[in-house]
Amino acid sequence: MKFCSNCAAPVAKRVPPGDNLPRWVCDQCGEIHYENPRLVVGSIPEFEGKLLLCRRAIEPRYGYWTLPAGFMENDETVGQAALRETLEEAGARIELGDAFSMISVPYVNQVHIFYRARLLDLDFSPGEESLEVALYEEARIPWKEVAFRTVATTLKLWFADRARGTFSFHAQDIIER
Amino acid sequence: MKFCSNCAAPVAKRVPPGDNLPRWVCDQCGEIHYENPRLVVGSIPEFEGKLLLCRRAIEPRYGYWTLPAGFMENDETVGQAALRETLEEAGARIELGDAFSMISVPYVNQVHIFYRARLLDLDFSPGEESLEVALYEEARIPWKEVAFRTVATTLKLWFADRARGTFSFHAQDIIER
Repeated sequence: MKFCSNCAAPVAKRVPPGDNLPRWVCDQCGEIHYENPRLVVGSIPEFEGKLLLCRRAIEPRYGYWTLPAGFMENDETVGQAALRETLEEAGARIELGDAFSMISVPYVNQVHIFYRARLLDLDFSPGEESLEVALYEEARIPWKEVAFRTVATTLKLWFADRARGTFSFHAQDIIER
Repeated sequence: MKFCSNCAAPVAKRVPPGDNLPRWVCDQCGEIHYENPRLVVGSIPEFEGKLLLCRRAIEPRYGYWTLPAGFMENDETVGQAALRETLEEAGARIELGDAFSMISVPYVNQVHIFYRARLLDLDFSPGEESLEVALYEEARIPWKEVAFRTVATTLKLWFADRARGTFSFHAQDIIER
């Protein structure tokens, strides 16, 4: 059972007039409550060829390693979200580079976007959602302990682009759960 | 006044423990109702150097011209959203190319993403949300009647890249209302 956030009446899922998908519709006040995918935004902070990873202090994937990233908030740009999450999770100051990867994950209704970034100093430290933060060279990336496939994919694309000598933007999908 | 969609109790905006932004919090069931930016996704359908534009049959910007685009839905990828919106608004079948532009519009809590696309045939026709659909060469684009700045920006970037002979991905912000 769900309720209308405007008037507290019960809502039902049905296809509104002129639409072709079922929505949560309030018959009392007429409000249609849309549900849309969320953006997860992060950075790939580099320092002398090493990348900054955070070990998660929260579920899901407690104890696993990830790039600094999180849900984009209202009232910010995608780039501002990447800067904010990097500061919050890794206590790290970065200079943002180009957008690097955009990965759709439809089964969780998310789109993950990562920016290239230059770590400005070594004065980083874990935020509340991280157990530790560390720089990894390619050979030492803990691949089996990477938290999310969007992060593993982004890291692999980054190292492949670096090996090729040129970075480009990558749009991909992870369809299978 | 707003209500909890889970339990219909009134919700209040306050900063939850461990957070740093005010959220709609339900004191009865504990649910935190996050609000996040939405993705608007579209395409730049090209046919023999001309681009396909739609004249809007809905507000906002009724009667103005736009690229086929709309809110991304749950359960789809960004690319699928671009294909779907192009079919819905322009009745047009396209082959999707690379992601081309990503423009943050924080004052409406939106991120607009456009893909390059090849229009597969001339059998297009306006959907319910369009008054007409037409191919425009660069010199005939109705710049003063383009519906949204994200669309105008994307069109300008597209023509500039074409003139340069190479297309790349563009991440930009439109900060001022």
